[in-house]
Amino acid sequence: MSQRVSDDAMAEVIAETRSDSSSRRHGGGDDDFVTDLPYMHRVGTPPKQPLFQEIKHSLMETFFADKPFHKFKDQSGSRKFVLALQSLFPILEWGRDYNLKKFRGDFVSGLTIASLCIPQDLAYAKLAYLDPWYGLYSSFVAPLVYAFMGTSRDIAIGPVAVVSLLLGSLLSSEISDTKSHDYVRLAFTATFFAGVTQLVLGVCRLGFLIDFLSHAAIVGFMAGAAITIALQQLKGLLGIKNFTTKTDIVSVLHSVWSNVHHGWNWETILIGLSFLIFLLITKYIAKRNKKLFWVSAISPMISVVVSTFFVYITRADEKGVSIVKHIKSGVNPSSANEIFFSGKYLGAGVRIGIVSGMVALTEAVAIGRTFAAMKDYSLDGNKEMVAMGTMNIVGSLTSSYVTTGSFSRSAVNFMAGCQTAVSNIVMSIVVLLTLLVLTPLFKYTPNAVLASIIIAAVVNLVNIEAMVLLWKIDKFDFVACMGAFFGVIFKSVEIGLLIAVAISFAKILLQVTRPRTAVLGKLPGTTVYRNIQQYPKAAQIPGMLIIRIDSAIYFSNSNYIKERILRWLIEEESQRTESELPGIQNLIVEMSPVTDIDTSGIHAFEELYKTLQKREVQLILANPGPVVIEKLHASKLTDLIGEDKIFLTVADAVATFGPKGVK
Amino acid sequence: MSQRVSDDAMAEVIAETRSDSSSRRHGGGDDDFVTDLPYMHRVGTPPKQPLFQEIKHSLMETFFADKPFHKFKDQSGSRKFVLALQSLFPILEWGRDYNLKKFRGDFVSGLTIASLCIPQDLAYAKLAYLDPWYGLYSSFVAPLVYAFMGTSRDIAIGPVAVVSLLLGSLLSSEISDTKSHDYVRLAFTATFFAGVTQLVLGVCRLGFLIDFLSHAAIVGFMAGAAITIALQQLKGLLGIKNFTTKTDIVSVLHSVWSNVHHGWNWETILIGLSFLIFLLITKYIAKRNKKLFWVSAISPMISVVVSTFFVYITRADEKGVSIVKHIKSGVNPSSANEIFFSGKYLGAGVRIGIVSGMVALTEAVAIGRTFAAMKDYSLDGNKEMVAMGTMNIVGSLTSSYVTTGSFSRSAVNFMAGCQTAVSNIVMSIVVLLTLLVLTPLFKYTPNAVLASIIIAAVVNLVNIEAMVLLWKIDKFDFVACMGAFFGVIFKSVEIGLLIAVAISFAKILLQVTRPRTAVLGKLPGTTVYRNIQQYPKAAQIPGMLIIRIDSAIYFSNSNYIKERILRWLIEEESQRTESELPGIQNLIVEMSPVTDIDTSGIHAFEELYKTLQKREVQLILANPGPVVIEKLHASKLTDLIGEDKIFLTVADAVATFGPKGVK
Repeated sequence: MSQRVSDDAMAEVIAETRSDSSSRRHGGGDDDFVTDLPYMHRVGTPPKQPLFQEIKHSLMETFFADKPFHKFKDQSGSRKFVLALQSLFPILEWGRDYNLKKFRGDFVSGLTIASLCIPQDLAYAKLAYLDPWYGLYSSFVAPLVYAFMGTSRDIAIGPVAVVSLLLGSLLSSEISDTKSHDYVRLAFTATFFAGVTQLVLGVCRLGFLIDFLSHAAIVGFMAGAAITIALQQLKGLLGIKNFTTKTDIVSVLHSVWSNVHHGWNWETILIGLSFLIFLLITKYIAKRNKKLFWVSAISPMISVVVSTFFVYITRADEKGVSIVKHIKSGVNPSSANEIFFSGKYLGAGVRIGIVSGMVALTEAVAIGRTFAAMKDYSLDGNKEMVAMGTMNIVGSLTSSYVTTGSFSRSAVNFMAGCQTAVSNIVMSIVVLLTLLVLTPLFKYTPNAVLASIIIAAVVNLVNIEAMVLLWKIDKFDFVACMGAFFGVIFKSVEIGLLIAVAISFAKILLQVTRPRTAVLGKLPGTTVYRNIQQYPKAAQIPGMLIIRIDSAIYFSNSNYIKERILRWLIEEESQRTESELPGIQNLIVEMSPVTDIDTSGIHAFEELYKTLQKREVQLILANPGPVVIEKLHASKLTDLIGEDKIFLTVADAVATFGPKGVK
Repeated sequence: MSQRVSDDAMAEVIAETRSDSSSRRHGGGDDDFVTDLPYMHRVGTPPKQPLFQEIKHSLMETFFADKPFHKFKDQSGSRKFVLALQSLFPILEWGRDYNLKKFRGDFVSGLTIASLCIPQDLAYAKLAYLDPWYGLYSSFVAPLVYAFMGTSRDIAIGPVAVVSLLLGSLLSSEISDTKSHDYVRLAFTATFFAGVTQLVLGVCRLGFLIDFLSHAAIVGFMAGAAITIALQQLKGLLGIKNFTTKTDIVSVLHSVWSNVHHGWNWETILIGLSFLIFLLITKYIAKRNKKLFWVSAISPMISVVVSTFFVYITRADEKGVSIVKHIKSGVNPSSANEIFFSGKYLGAGVRIGIVSGMVALTEAVAIGRTFAAMKDYSLDGNKEMVAMGTMNIVGSLTSSYVTTGSFSRSAVNFMAGCQTAVSNIVMSIVVLLTLLVLTPLFKYTPNAVLASIIIAAVVNLVNIEAMVLLWKIDKFDFVACMGAFFGVIFKSVEIGLLIAVAISFAKILLQVTRPRTAVLGKLPGTTVYRNIQQYPKAAQIPGMLIIRIDSAIYFSNSNYIKERILRWLIEEESQRTESELPGIQNLIVEMSPVTDIDTSGIHAFEELYKTLQKREVQLILANPGPVVIEKLHASKLTDLIGEDKIFLTVADAVATFGPKGVK
């Protein structure tokens, strides 16, 4: 059957192509009546949709582009309930196919990421100026919640370096005494509202908002944050006691140099540097041989164990090596009544929550998408946000701070062969056991080792390859990247973020204000018209100017487009007069790329038409799209320009109004 | 010569067309080697520009799209100076061709707009809660400055209703005692910074910023402001003493009703209503017969004269009819040391200045463009802003408040036959004479007549026709219009303005986040591929899916585009399986409308390619533009996809990879 259909189609096509080429040759002879020839297609007007349909379609495409309700259609009530539950808790769906083989993969990868996350948790909590156990708390509750609600199979949930830094920087600018109880309470408040932000974005299907932070801006922001974080670690690594609280590179380096004579502790430096070198070597090994990824994955744990043991037997802490000292034991206590729901810190909590929630989301979605593309499964952005939001709200009630997907741990998770989110559950259980049993052992862990673990972890965030690629591909992207980068390292994380967002927006605005236009010429031997800049062989038609507008025409660019077209016309006219070519009588506007036009655009065309009339140049439109032709009709602009001046292709317009013989 | 060239071109084209159609027919037979046939053009890569050139070109197109320095090229030093002076003061250029005939037109139109502007000035100043003589001051200095620096020949400069209302509303929210001296000083401060804003926009060539307030938003805002202004006049028209200071419709109507028994003054109502009816009738006459435009132009002056005389002889002011009473005589005093350059009101002055300066500019540029298009001369947007800015800065130093182009007076100016900006000078001199000699005569002018003049003037701002057109052409524009409209009448002028800007931006963001995509089919009998929704006759090719992306691919939409393409693929596959048609082996992406791609877009294509590979679907690109092909090369994406999968046209791609015989 299928074969027959395609054969039929081909036969039809072949027959028509023949009559086509013959009628074309005929059409070239007497061009006045060419429009009546059978091969000429008129510009189609799509079937008019009722208003409600139109609005519904446009809303659906904006908010429900992924058709989330598709599967609910034509289902019974109880089935709908099951589907809704499955949609909220994807574990109910994939859990049914879960088997021992998958568990083996998840178990191994869960243990691997647990060994990586425990030392990182202790270290990252310090970046947020929180006590180390809050890092462990955050790696227990949040991954459990995510495992039930998330759609990514590879993401590893927990505290991450950049969000910890951002949170610490924002919180401490609000409450400078980071040891006060209010500071911790504000951290939980911010976490709560970060979760609310994420949940609201997901439920209101506004997930596309995070797309506004461009890839380039993220690359720059991450690299800047990594360098800032690494610089912060000089405090722990060099054993400096009086360290600046600012994060910009100038203050930090000044602080480091001014402490060189009396503030550096040589025992600390020895410990810190040796483990940093160890960590970087294992990283290098893992990079050279992907199979040895576990070497770098367990090296932080090895560093912690070895250094703790070393400090314990040498009692180096008495020689000035700073250690973790006190670390709380036991499971997360409730923090539900610690959150500021009123009072002077509520506003700050909401603001910090929104910023850190958005940044956390951007990181998680970027990670989720990367791994989903690698394994070719689909990631539901809005569902992810709901999962992240719930996880942070629950986290804020159980003494956790903002968590998200960690890039380094997710990569290890992936390479260790994780199959589902169960690896997060395994990790979470290991963290629980650590909290219950092992925390006293971290007492002698030197802070210098935690600093080296952080440095080794953030090195990868400086993605020089990506920056080089940005430079090669798109200079504007590179500027955005550098803006974010220098903003972070020379001012602060917030300023860097602001610069990144501002440049991203500026790019969008530039795109819609100054769209491209191109002069088209005919490729020899074809009826194809192309940009004469790209195809130097393309020849212009005597007496005609063909311009393509490369954007939807909106209020933001309608005036520019009108004036740009007139400028092309004036420039071309003077050039042709110089070369003694005939003047321009016809201006063809190729509208293929013009997907939409608004009332300002219609007005601009009206004005263009009037100006051209004064200059005795005929305005001809080629290939307006469905939306455009509808609006041209609605505004009666078609009557003004003339229906017979609107063609399906540039070639048709040239055949009709061009010099004889050209088409 | 010219004839010969075009004949040659034609001969060549005809010859090539013949070989074209024959080779095409040949090509249809054995499609495997079609790529080697002579008619196949490869996708061109434009000559690589050096980086500096590229950046320069892009900056020029953004900020100097009108090539302002073009005429300075290859000129001597002294000539450059003259040109620069002429460019700053266009009067030096057009003044040389000025003659008596032109002056006759300017004189008549100048007198006409003066007779219209004097009563309006008195009335509009009250809208800004300023004493009436400030309106006259503003109509003396500002038009003089504009006449020397402006490029519009038809615009009539002076205070306008909407800006006066906006200014009054913003100023009084800052200083509620509008009779205090600080209030007047703040008004001058705001005017100064409005001028600075306009000047900076012009000098920095950021004029395109005002394009972001869409036509639709302006229509709604103006209509809302007109109704608000008219409602405010009920105070004067009904002679109410205790009137609300709020501007929203609910407060105003409440205030009117609550005063019905003891607050209304019947003598005032009689005077106000009779002159309002007289003004509306003359307006109607002028609308019916364009030649009688002067009837409506002089009717406000007649109303003022008649009513003043009437009050004077009947002493109606003793019966409770409110009159202008005191009016200052003499030319504008200096106000240079009244402006707040420091202190607590500086911030408010700057903020109010920026807002009112932008709104004033939007109105002036819209008016200027309308009349420039009617008479087909070009208006230099940036030069206009410099002129407006200077005029308001000078105005603020000479006791004037924010001025701009008035739509009603400009229309009268145009119809009265103005030739150049000299009509503004004539008007300015008449205002000067009034200030010197006639002001005492306005003492008995009843406020009710000024109220009727305002109402009659703003009636035209409610442009119902334009609203209907918005509804017909673009529903989104209509929503923006209504948002601004209801924002103004139910909340305040500022809120309405904010809503208008927000909706305009939302539209831009929507456009760049959710671009359109379309499935293409082959129009029978052609090699033209078009949207199958618009052209139901267009037939899909068996085994192929052709998708056109209708937008530049940027970080804000790259992910959506990728997922949308995959969704098209999945939907089409399931449809074709149902109809027992062959599955899809080739996905052609028509890139003609894709004018640009950034690094996020490149990544999205990489991911798309990988996903398609997993599904055993071949990715083919058709007609990438110059910028896009360059970036595809730079990112090595061409190597990944394969150079032989990138075609000049969809037809070429179909001829190569499609079923035999279709092309």
